[in-house]
Amino acid sequence: MREVPDFPREGVVFRDLTPVLADPDAFRCVVDALQGQIDPSATVVAAVEARGFLLGAALGYGWRYGVVPLRKPGKLPAVAHRASYALEYGTASLELPADGVLPGQRVVVVDDVLATGGTAAAACSLVEAAGGVVVGVSVVLEIASLAGRAALSPYPVASLLTV
Amino acid sequence: MREVPDFPREGVVFRDLTPVLADPDAFRCVVDALQGQIDPSATVVAAVEARGFLLGAALGYGWRYGVVPLRKPGKLPAVAHRASYALEYGTASLELPADGVLPGQRVVVVDDVLATGGTAAAACSLVEAAGGVVVGVSVVLEIASLAGRAALSPYPVASLLTV
Repeated sequence: MREVPDFPREGVVFRDLTPVLADPDAFRCVVDALQGQIDPSATVVAAVEARGFLLGAALGYGWRYGVVPLRKPGKLPAVAHRASYALEYGTASLELPADGVLPGQRVVVVDDVLATGGTAAAACSLVEAAGGVVVGVSVVLEIASLAGRAALSPYPVASLLTV
Repeated sequence: MREVPDFPREGVVFRDLTPVLADPDAFRCVVDALQGQIDPSATVVAAVEARGFLLGAALGYGWRYGVVPLRKPGKLPAVAHRASYALEYGTASLELPADGVLPGQRVVVVDDVLATGGTAAAACSLVEAAGGVVVGVSVVLEIASLAGRAALSPYPVASLLTV
Protein backbone atom coordinates (compact mmCIF):
# COMPACT_ATOMS: atom_id res chain seq x y z
CA MET A 1 0.00 0.00 0.00
CA ARG A 2 1.34 3.37 -1.04
CA GLU A 3 0.83 6.36 1.27
CA VAL A 4 0.50 9.67 -0.56
CA PRO A 5 0.51 12.82 1.60
CA ASP A 6 -1.77 15.79 0.82
CA PHE A 7 -4.07 13.95 -1.59
CA PRO A 8 -6.81 14.72 -2.52
CA ARG A 9 -6.25 17.81 -0.36
CA GLU A 10 -3.65 19.14 2.08
CA GLY A 11 -3.47 17.30 5.36
CA VAL A 12 -5.00 14.04 4.08
CA VAL A 13 -2.78 10.99 3.73
CA PHE A 14 -4.22 8.92 0.88
CA ARG A 15 -3.79 5.16 1.12
CA ASP A 16 -3.38 3.82 -2.40
CA LEU A 17 -4.21 0.15 -3.01
CA THR A 18 -3.00 0.23 -6.62
CA PRO A 19 0.13 -1.81 -5.85
CA VAL A 20 -2.03 -4.53 -4.29
CA LEU A 21 -4.17 -4.76 -7.41
CA ALA A 22 -1.10 -5.12 -9.58
CA ASP A 23 0.03 -8.24 -7.72
CA PRO A 24 -2.27 -11.24 -8.28
CA ASP A 25 -1.20 -12.98 -5.07
CA ALA A 26 -1.62 -9.87 -2.95
CA PHE A 27 -5.01 -9.11 -4.49
CA ARG A 28 -6.24 -12.63 -3.90
CA CYS A 29 -4.98 -12.52 -0.34
CA VAL A 30 -6.84 -9.29 0.36
CA VAL A 31 -10.08 -10.42 -1.29
CA ASP A 32 -10.07 -13.75 0.54
CA ALA A 33 -9.40 -12.02 3.84
CA LEU A 34 -12.33 -9.70 3.16
CA GLN A 35 -14.50 -12.71 2.46
CA GLY A 36 -13.42 -14.30 5.71
CA GLN A 37 -14.92 -11.46 7.70
CA ILE A 38 -18.27 -11.34 5.88
CA ASP A 39 -21.35 -12.66 7.68
CA PRO A 40 -22.01 -16.15 6.28
CA SER A 41 -25.65 -15.30 5.63
CA ALA A 42 -24.78 -12.64 3.03
CA THR A 43 -25.61 -13.47 -0.58
CA VAL A 44 -25.14 -10.05 -2.14
CA VAL A 45 -22.22 -7.62 -2.17
CA ALA A 46 -23.12 -3.94 -2.56
CA ALA A 47 -19.97 -2.42 -4.06
CA VAL A 48 -19.34 1.32 -3.77
CA GLU A 49 -18.09 3.11 -6.91
CA ALA A 50 -15.33 3.06 -7.93
CA ARG A 51 -12.65 1.32 -5.86
CA GLY A 52 -15.29 -0.78 -4.14
CA PHE A 53 -16.10 -2.24 -7.58
CA LEU A 54 -12.65 -3.82 -7.73
CA LEU A 55 -13.13 -5.62 -4.42
CA GLY A 56 -16.82 -6.38 -4.83
CA ALA A 57 -16.44 -7.90 -8.29
CA ALA A 58 -13.61 -10.14 -7.14
CA LEU A 59 -15.72 -11.27 -4.18
CA GLY A 60 -18.65 -11.91 -6.48
CA TYR A 61 -16.58 -13.93 -8.93
CA GLY A 62 -14.56 -15.84 -6.38
CA TRP A 63 -17.14 -16.46 -3.73
CA ARG A 64 -20.37 -16.36 -5.73
CA TYR A 65 -22.06 -13.31 -4.32
CA GLY A 66 -24.42 -11.29 -6.43
CA VAL A 67 -22.81 -7.90 -7.10
CA VAL A 68 -24.77 -4.66 -6.92
CA PRO A 69 -22.88 -1.56 -8.02
CA LEU A 70 -23.75 1.55 -6.03
CA ARG A 71 -23.04 4.35 -8.48
CA LYS A 72 -22.51 8.06 -8.61
CA PRO A 73 -25.44 10.04 -10.07
CA GLY A 74 -26.00 9.99 -13.83
CA LYS A 75 -24.40 6.61 -14.44
CA LEU A 76 -27.28 4.20 -13.95
CA PRO A 77 -29.98 4.02 -16.63
CA ALA A 78 -32.53 2.63 -14.17
CA VAL A 79 -32.38 3.93 -10.59
CA ALA A 80 -34.27 2.51 -7.63
CA HIS A 81 -33.08 4.89 -4.88
CA ARG A 82 -30.65 7.74 -4.28
CA ALA A 83 -28.90 8.80 -1.04
CA SER A 84 -26.81 11.93 -0.46
CA TYR A 85 -24.10 12.18 2.17
CA ALA A 86 -21.15 14.18 3.42
CA LEU A 87 -17.69 12.72 3.01
CA GLU A 88 -14.23 13.57 4.28
CA TYR A 89 -13.78 16.18 1.58
CA GLY A 90 -17.08 17.46 0.13
CA THR A 91 -20.49 15.92 -0.52
CA ALA A 92 -21.74 13.25 -2.89
CA SER A 93 -24.60 10.93 -3.76
CA LEU A 94 -24.96 7.24 -4.49
CA GLU A 95 -27.63 5.43 -6.47
CA LEU A 96 -28.90 1.88 -6.29
CA PRO A 97 -29.86 0.26 -9.60
CA ALA A 98 -33.41 -0.92 -10.25
CA ASP A 99 -33.84 -4.55 -9.16
CA GLY A 100 -30.35 -4.39 -7.61
CA VAL A 101 -31.47 -5.56 -4.18
CA LEU A 102 -34.59 -7.65 -3.65
CA PRO A 103 -36.64 -7.51 -0.44
CA GLY A 104 -35.17 -9.77 2.22
CA GLN A 105 -31.79 -10.23 0.56
CA ARG A 106 -28.89 -10.20 2.99
CA VAL A 107 -26.29 -7.72 1.82
CA VAL A 108 -22.75 -6.77 2.80
CA VAL A 109 -21.50 -3.30 1.85
CA VAL A 110 -17.93 -3.38 0.52
CA ASP A 111 -15.50 -0.52 -0.02
CA ASP A 112 -11.76 0.00 0.13
CA VAL A 113 -11.52 2.55 2.93
CA LEU A 114 -13.74 3.48 5.88
CA ALA A 115 -13.18 7.11 6.85
CA THR A 116 -16.08 9.07 8.39
CA GLY A 117 -18.55 6.36 7.41
CA GLY A 118 -20.70 8.74 5.38
CA THR A 119 -20.41 6.77 2.18
CA ALA A 120 -21.02 3.45 3.87
CA ALA A 121 -24.02 4.83 5.78
CA ALA A 122 -25.53 6.03 2.51
CA ALA A 123 -24.89 2.60 1.01
CA CYS A 124 -26.65 0.93 3.94
CA SER A 125 -29.63 3.26 3.61
CA LEU A 126 -29.94 2.38 -0.08
CA VAL A 127 -29.94 -1.34 0.66
CA GLU A 128 -32.63 -0.86 3.28
CA ALA A 129 -34.69 1.41 1.06
CA ALA A 130 -34.94 -1.53 -1.34
CA GLY A 131 -35.99 -3.88 1.46
CA GLY A 132 -32.61 -5.56 1.86
CA VAL A 133 -30.99 -6.47 5.17
CA VAL A 134 -27.52 -5.03 5.82
CA VAL A 135 -25.51 -7.75 7.55
CA GLY A 136 -22.34 -5.69 7.75
CA VAL A 137 -19.85 -3.28 6.24
CA SER A 138 -16.53 -4.72 5.13
CA VAL A 139 -13.48 -2.66 4.17
CA VAL A 140 -9.79 -3.14 3.64
CA LEU A 141 -8.65 -0.11 5.62
CA GLU A 142 -10.26 1.71 8.53
CA ILE A 143 -9.05 5.17 9.56
CA ALA A 144 -9.83 5.02 13.27
CA SER A 145 -9.45 8.74 13.97
CA LEU A 146 -12.42 9.51 11.70
CA ALA A 147 -14.76 7.31 13.78
CA GLY A 148 -16.62 5.70 10.91
CA ARG A 149 -17.29 2.60 12.97
CA ALA A 150 -19.22 4.59 15.55
CA ALA A 151 -21.11 6.47 12.82
CA LEU A 152 -22.26 3.15 11.36
CA SER A 153 -23.46 1.65 14.63
CA PRO A 154 -25.25 -0.74 15.02
CA TYR A 155 -24.11 -2.21 11.69
CA PRO A 156 -21.21 -4.61 12.19
CA VAL A 157 -18.02 -3.21 10.66
CA ALA A 158 -15.04 -5.37 9.70
CA SER A 159 -11.71 -4.07 8.45
CA LEU A 160 -8.51 -5.85 7.55
CA LEU A 161 -6.28 -3.05 8.71
CA THR A 162 -6.78 -0.11 11.07
CA VAL A 163 -4.63 3.01 11.06
CA MET B 1 -28.91 -7.54 -20.25
CA ARG B 2 -31.36 -4.69 -19.98
CA GLU B 3 -31.81 -2.32 -22.92
CA VAL B 4 -32.67 1.23 -21.92
CA PRO B 5 -33.65 3.61 -24.75
CA ASP B 6 -32.53 7.27 -24.77
CA PHE B 7 -29.82 6.92 -22.10
CA PRO B 8 -27.55 8.74 -21.49
CA ARG B 9 -29.03 10.87 -24.28
CA GLU B 10 -31.83 10.67 -26.84
CA GLY B 11 -31.25 8.15 -29.59
CA VAL B 12 -28.77 6.00 -27.67
CA VAL B 13 -29.86 2.56 -26.52
CA PHE B 14 -27.93 1.80 -23.35
CA ARG B 15 -27.06 -1.83 -22.70
CA ASP B 16 -27.12 -2.37 -18.96
CA LEU B 17 -25.13 -5.30 -17.56
CA THR B 18 -26.43 -4.79 -14.02
CA PRO B 19 -28.67 -7.89 -14.18
CA VAL B 20 -25.65 -10.02 -15.15
CA LEU B 21 -23.68 -8.78 -12.15
CA ALA B 22 -26.54 -9.63 -9.83
CA ASP B 23 -26.47 -13.29 -10.88
CA PRO B 24 -23.33 -15.13 -9.73
CA ASP B 25 -23.62 -17.82 -12.39
CA ALA B 26 -24.18 -15.33 -15.20
CA PHE B 27 -21.32 -13.13 -14.03
CA ARG B 28 -18.94 -16.07 -13.83
CA CYS B 29 -20.02 -17.23 -17.27
CA VAL B 30 -19.33 -13.80 -18.77
CA VAL B 31 -15.97 -13.37 -17.03
CA ASP B 32 -14.78 -16.82 -18.03
CA ALA B 33 -15.86 -16.24 -21.62
CA LEU B 34 -13.91 -12.97 -21.62
CA GLN B 35 -10.89 -14.82 -20.33
CA GLY B 36 -11.23 -17.40 -23.09
CA GLN B 37 -10.72 -14.75 -25.73
CA ILE B 38 -7.67 -13.09 -24.12
CA ASP B 39 -4.27 -13.67 -25.70
CA PRO B 40 -2.50 -16.30 -23.55
CA SER B 41 0.60 -14.14 -23.28
CA ALA B 42 -1.22 -11.42 -21.32
CA THR B 43 -0.33 -11.08 -17.64
CA VAL B 44 -1.97 -7.74 -16.90
CA VAL B 45 -5.54 -6.50 -17.32
CA ALA B 46 -5.95 -2.75 -17.83
CA ALA B 47 -9.49 -2.08 -16.60
CA VAL B 48 -11.34 1.05 -17.71
CA GLU B 49 -13.22 3.00 -15.01
CA ALA B 50 -15.84 2.23 -13.89
CA ARG B 51 -17.69 -0.73 -15.40
CA GLY B 52 -14.43 -2.15 -16.69
CA PHE B 53 -13.33 -2.42 -13.06
CA LEU B 54 -16.04 -4.98 -12.40
CA LEU B 55 -14.86 -7.21 -15.23
CA GLY B 56 -11.13 -6.58 -14.80
CA ALA B 57 -11.11 -7.29 -11.08
CA ALA B 58 -12.98 -10.55 -11.56
CA LEU B 59 -10.50 -11.56 -14.27
CA GLY B 60 -7.61 -10.65 -11.99
CA TYR B 61 -8.98 -12.61 -9.07
CA GLY B 62 -10.14 -15.62 -11.01
CA TRP B 63 -7.39 -15.92 -13.55
CA ARG B 64 -4.47 -14.29 -11.75
CA TYR B 65 -3.85 -11.26 -13.90
CA GLY B 66 -2.40 -8.12 -12.42
CA VAL B 67 -5.09 -5.43 -12.47
CA VAL B 68 -4.31 -1.86 -13.49
CA PRO B 69 -7.20 0.58 -13.05
CA LEU B 70 -7.35 3.27 -15.75
CA ARG B 71 -9.04 6.14 -13.97
CA LYS B 72 -10.81 9.40 -14.67
CA PRO B 73 -8.78 12.51 -13.83
CA GLY B 74 -8.40 13.53 -10.21
CA LYS B 75 -8.78 10.05 -8.75
CA LEU B 76 -5.23 8.72 -8.78
CA PRO B 77 -2.74 10.07 -6.26
CA ALA B 78 0.22 9.10 -8.43
CA VAL B 79 -0.23 9.40 -12.20
CA ALA B 80 2.15 8.07 -14.83
CA HIS B 81 0.34 9.20 -18.00
CA ARG B 82 -2.88 10.85 -19.15
CA ALA B 83 -4.75 10.47 -22.46
CA SER B 84 -7.73 12.50 -23.66
CA TYR B 85 -10.26 11.21 -26.15
CA ALA B 86 -13.67 11.75 -27.71
CA LEU B 87 -16.45 9.35 -26.84
CA GLU B 88 -19.92 8.66 -28.14
CA TYR B 89 -21.35 11.53 -26.09
CA GLY B 90 -18.74 14.15 -25.12
CA THR B 91 -15.03 14.04 -24.27
CA ALA B 92 -13.06 12.56 -21.39
CA SER B 93 -9.61 11.60 -20.14
CA LEU B 94 -8.08 8.51 -18.59
CA GLU B 95 -5.03 8.22 -16.35
CA LEU B 96 -2.63 5.36 -15.78
CA PRO B 97 -1.29 4.97 -12.21
CA ALA B 98 2.40 5.24 -11.46
CA ASP B 99 4.07 1.82 -11.70
CA GLY B 100 0.81 0.44 -13.09
CA VAL B 101 2.40 -1.04 -16.21
CA LEU B 102 6.05 -2.03 -16.37
CA PRO B 103 8.07 -1.95 -19.61
CA GLY B 104 7.55 -5.11 -21.61
CA GLN B 105 4.46 -6.29 -19.75
CA ARG B 106 1.80 -7.80 -21.98
CA VAL B 107 -1.53 -6.15 -21.34
CA VAL B 108 -5.13 -6.69 -22.37
CA VAL B 109 -7.52 -3.74 -22.19
CA VAL B 110 -10.90 -4.71 -20.74
CA ASP B 111 -14.17 -2.79 -20.77
CA ASP B 112 -17.84 -3.61 -20.86
CA VAL B 113 -18.82 -2.01 -24.19
CA LEU B 114 -16.94 -1.09 -27.36
CA ALA B 115 -18.64 1.81 -29.10
CA THR B 116 -16.53 4.22 -31.18
CA GLY B 117 -13.32 2.81 -29.71
CA GLY B 118 -12.18 6.17 -28.38
CA THR B 119 -11.92 5.02 -24.79
CA ALA B 120 -10.15 1.81 -25.70
CA ALA B 121 -7.71 3.63 -27.99
CA ALA B 122 -6.83 5.99 -25.14
CA ALA B 123 -6.34 2.99 -22.87
CA CYS B 124 -4.01 1.38 -25.41
CA SER B 125 -2.00 4.59 -25.75
CA LEU B 126 -1.56 4.74 -21.97
CA VAL B 127 -0.28 1.18 -21.83
CA GLU B 128 2.19 1.91 -24.60
CA ALA B 129 3.29 5.20 -23.04
CA ALA B 130 4.40 3.15 -20.04
CA GLY B 131 6.29 0.70 -22.27
CA GLY B 132 3.71 -2.06 -22.13
CA VAL B 133 2.62 -4.20 -25.07
CA VAL B 134 -1.11 -4.21 -25.91
CA VAL B 135 -2.01 -7.77 -26.87
CA GLY B 136 -5.68 -6.99 -27.41
CA VAL B 137 -8.89 -5.29 -26.40
CA SER B 138 -11.58 -7.47 -24.86
CA VAL B 139 -15.17 -6.38 -24.26
CA VAL B 140 -18.51 -7.95 -23.49
CA LEU B 141 -20.53 -6.03 -26.06
CA GLU B 142 -19.52 -4.50 -29.38
CA ILE B 143 -21.77 -1.99 -31.13
CA ALA B 144 -20.85 -2.72 -34.72
CA SER B 145 -22.42 0.39 -36.26
CA LEU B 146 -19.98 2.63 -34.37
CA ALA B 147 -16.96 0.94 -35.97
CA GLY B 148 -14.79 0.74 -32.88
CA ARG B 149 -13.03 -2.34 -34.19
CA ALA B 150 -11.77 -0.45 -37.24
CA ALA B 151 -10.73 2.51 -35.10
CA LEU B 152 -8.59 0.21 -32.97
CA SER B 153 -6.83 -1.52 -35.87
CA PRO B 154 -4.33 -3.18 -35.75
CA TYR B 155 -5.04 -4.13 -32.12
CA PRO B 156 -6.94 -7.43 -31.92
CA VAL B 157 -10.48 -6.87 -30.63
CA ALA B 158 -12.56 -9.61 -29.08
CA SER B 159 -16.19 -9.27 -28.04
CA LEU B 160 -18.64 -11.76 -26.60
CA LEU B 161 -21.65 -10.21 -28.30
CA THR B 162 -22.06 -7.93 -31.29
CA VAL B 163 -25.12 -5.79 -31.91
